[in-house]
Amino acid sequence: MAEQGTNVAHDETERLIASNKVEGTAVYNRQGEKLGSIHNFMVEKVSGRVEYAVMTAGGGLLGSARYYPLPWDVLTYSTERGGYEVDFEPGRLEGAPSYQGEEQPRFDRDYDDRVRGHYGRR
Amino acid sequence: MAEQGTNVAHDETERLIASNKVEGTAVYNRQGEKLGSIHNFMVEKVSGRVEYAVMTAGGGLLGSARYYPLPWDVLTYSTERGGYEVDFEPGRLEGAPSYQGEEQPRFDRDYDDRVRGHYGRR
Repeated sequence: MAEQGTNVAHDETERLIASNKVEGTAVYNRQGEKLGSIHNFMVEKVSGRVEYAVMTAGGGLLGSARYYPLPWDVLTYSTERGGYEVDFEPGRLEGAPSYQGEEQPRFDRDYDDRVRGHYGRR
Repeated sequence: MAEQGTNVAHDETERLIASNKVEGTAVYNRQGEKLGSIHNFMVEKVSGRVEYAVMTAGGGLLGSARYYPLPWDVLTYSTERGGYEVDFEPGRLEGAPSYQGEEQPRFDRDYDDRVRGHYGRR
């Protein structure tokens, strides 16, 4: 798990960002409401490309955490907020491809189409 | 930090692997000697491509840990060893681009050329 906020910039260069600093970083919508935080990256083994940044939301008293795979290019880092910003409303997550704890999906091509389609990325 | 060994497979699918499961995973040479473990991934922000898997070695009683950026395609996961395998000898790390704690390099194009050149990846 990563340290939060100010440390995000520490392992960041102009071009690159460190995975363990991203994990745990908050995700906000354009209105500044916190939607969740980054759980991990799912990386394609052969190419080394990040297929998804997985956001976790909920958990604690609200029940079990849910995991939302997000296409990489949905996220923009905001130095102002000290976290990632996404360009969709909180309601966008309802009906979005997601899973809980042990029920992790098969991350196959069909799933990828669903995720990218949901966020308008083709 | 990731759990080790057996948990690596948990968040793995045929195509994808989870960043937080890779962090902490051991790295061995072909002879089965442990060289270090994966510290993190350095990801290119725009493309979402993993530029390096950073291996950490040493530390503890031996002194400060050193960090070795490795091109993604140098690493092969070995289910037999429960960790990554690299196709070079331990001596290959001597003189390899590396850094300690706070002295992290500028990860610019020149550095990338040095890293890829050292491991024979162009």
